[in-house]
Amino acid sequence: MAGGVGSRFWPLSTENFPKQFHDILGAGQTLIQKTFDRLAQLVPDENILILTNERYKTLVNEQLPMVKDSHIVLEPAMRNTAPCILLAALKIQKTNPNAIMVVAPSDHWIEDEASFSRDLDIAFNACNSSDVKKGEDDLLVTLGIKPTFPHTGYGYISYSDSDQNVKKVNAFTEKPNYETAQKFLAQGNYAWNAGIFIWCVQTIVDSFEKYLPEMYKILSGGMPVFNTNHEQTFVHEEYPKVENISIDYGILEKGKNVNVVPATFDWSDMGAWCSLYDKKEKDSDENVVINANMISKNSSGNLVRTKDGKIVVLHSLKDFVVVDREDILLIMPKEKEQEVKILRQEVKDKFGNNLV
Amino acid sequence: MAGGVGSRFWPLSTENFPKQFHDILGAGQTLIQKTFDRLAQLVPDENILILTNERYKTLVNEQLPMVKDSHIVLEPAMRNTAPCILLAALKIQKTNPNAIMVVAPSDHWIEDEASFSRDLDIAFNACNSSDVKKGEDDLLVTLGIKPTFPHTGYGYISYSDSDQNVKKVNAFTEKPNYETAQKFLAQGNYAWNAGIFIWCVQTIVDSFEKYLPEMYKILSGGMPVFNTNHEQTFVHEEYPKVENISIDYGILEKGKNVNVVPATFDWSDMGAWCSLYDKKEKDSDENVVINANMISKNSSGNLVRTKDGKIVVLHSLKDFVVVDREDILLIMPKEKEQEVKILRQEVKDKFGNNLV
Repeated sequence: MAGGVGSRFWPLSTENFPKQFHDILGAGQTLIQKTFDRLAQLVPDENILILTNERYKTLVNEQLPMVKDSHIVLEPAMRNTAPCILLAALKIQKTNPNAIMVVAPSDHWIEDEASFSRDLDIAFNACNSSDVKKGEDDLLVTLGIKPTFPHTGYGYISYSDSDQNVKKVNAFTEKPNYETAQKFLAQGNYAWNAGIFIWCVQTIVDSFEKYLPEMYKILSGGMPVFNTNHEQTFVHEEYPKVENISIDYGILEKGKNVNVVPATFDWSDMGAWCSLYDKKEKDSDENVVINANMISKNSSGNLVRTKDGKIVVLHSLKDFVVVDREDILLIMPKEKEQEVKILRQEVKDKFGNNLV
Repeated sequence: MAGGVGSRFWPLSTENFPKQFHDILGAGQTLIQKTFDRLAQLVPDENILILTNERYKTLVNEQLPMVKDSHIVLEPAMRNTAPCILLAALKIQKTNPNAIMVVAPSDHWIEDEASFSRDLDIAFNACNSSDVKKGEDDLLVTLGIKPTFPHTGYGYISYSDSDQNVKKVNAFTEKPNYETAQKFLAQGNYAWNAGIFIWCVQTIVDSFEKYLPEMYKILSGGMPVFNTNHEQTFVHEEYPKVENISIDYGILEKGKNVNVVPATFDWSDMGAWCSLYDKKEKDSDENVVINANMISKNSSGNLVRTKDGKIVVLHSLKDFVVVDREDILLIMPKEKEQEVKILRQEVKDKFGNNLV
């Protein structure tokens, strides 16, 4: 899934060039390239579909040249995660009704790829078990990240503890307040919802038919044309008609047999600038410097990101985000990062769409 | 005089592109262009000499295309103001022994050009009086700026008050401490030394012969070749041999008949970033924004300068200097502006000469 705008990572991330297509971490690869490589260790390249907005087709072509146009599903409108997942599931189902499918956002950060592969294998095996393959149960699996602090910006999954690697989900709680998040951590049987899902295509298609019948009706109408030259015309016409809803809200919270694999890898949704600060190595003054060459005096706790090799000279600046690109410079306290969206909107209103 | 490096205006001003060649004020003209135009109202273009370092010849050619190469005096080494003024005086003397000469820095800010012209006229007339022309007295005139606050970075001129427009100078005091500067202002008969001088060429050449005889001996040796094709060879060979000394220290502080015309115009030596902040119009939050398009929140008292049209978004930044150029970004409290030189040196040591 690579259709988001990443507005909290503005001004680096923009509508025309969102964060999944940036090397936000300064790692030598963009987030979508890293995500592709991570999944390609488990899934053959030719089985990977990219779900993105029409306007990002060129970016996908450039950054993932091994992905054929037939594997890039272009959404003509932003409709959240449920519709694009159903669309992909139907396309896969047409090719292989017995397929097991993994859904992953393209803009997350996962350092330990070996652990990721191991956890994904556990989920695959669970879905591959005979009971499920017979369609006896709507087994939907999500990877749950072990929470390290009471983050109020994530979704939490509570599960029934057991000796199994795959645990039954009790409930989803989206963005709890701090006290609630603290309670969750104390209880222990909670995980962060990483938005990485594993299921049989048959199971998820059935779930859509059951829980989002309108959407199922519209999109399954495309079965005859999926994976043909006529697919894009169908999508262009029908996709905008479907409900704008997330897979969590539309399916998972209603599913009867949702399970979680508590994951062992370190993870970040790279939701905003501070998540980048948290993930990167600090210099001796606790500054994170990406791409820039820094000279600093009495300056600490800052996140600085520029184009490659730009000199940044800081004096007496503390706990700020400094992001510089060709045409925009942002200087803002780290703790105000949630206001990026407001500032971005002001720039949009005042100086136009091409900057946000 | 256009040979300085302007290191306190780094990172805008650099050794290869110093501040006099920048449109620091965002006025549509560089400082040297503004200075040329200001003087050209009183002096014919063809009588204006540009004294600068060899390496700035191209910049002068580009920015002042009306100035012939024969009128650009290229210093092969930095030797402060005295030697270049003597060199210019000798060249002028060879053309016109009766000339009156005005010396002016190319990087100062003067808003009220009409007042500047009036004050300069007063000084010209004083030098033009018959007594002086006969060489009876070494009348050297400087324009003195009425101090508006106890600035500790300027030179002060004390003078004997009188009804005359041209007043006798008692003493020069370079960069007094704050208490002394306060006393000067309270006394009233003090002016800032603007480094703008008016004198007969005969008088200043005589003064050099008297007070800096070694320098006079070396440079006057070039009389036969000045204003010929051989001048530059002579200058290149002999100029580096002369003493490195300012005109104030070398001549004016020793002169017997130094006078000051208390000037009526507003002036700044544009010595550092704060002087730019002081001179420019503020927005409603007391920010000075040059070239940038700014969105700010809870940010005041800042000086922001970028390339034309760059968007700058500030949140919770107060009393800072933010200067952005292609390859360097400086973020520093206004009150630390004197440390620019140190930071500049650090960048030079760490990242090389081409950045400073």
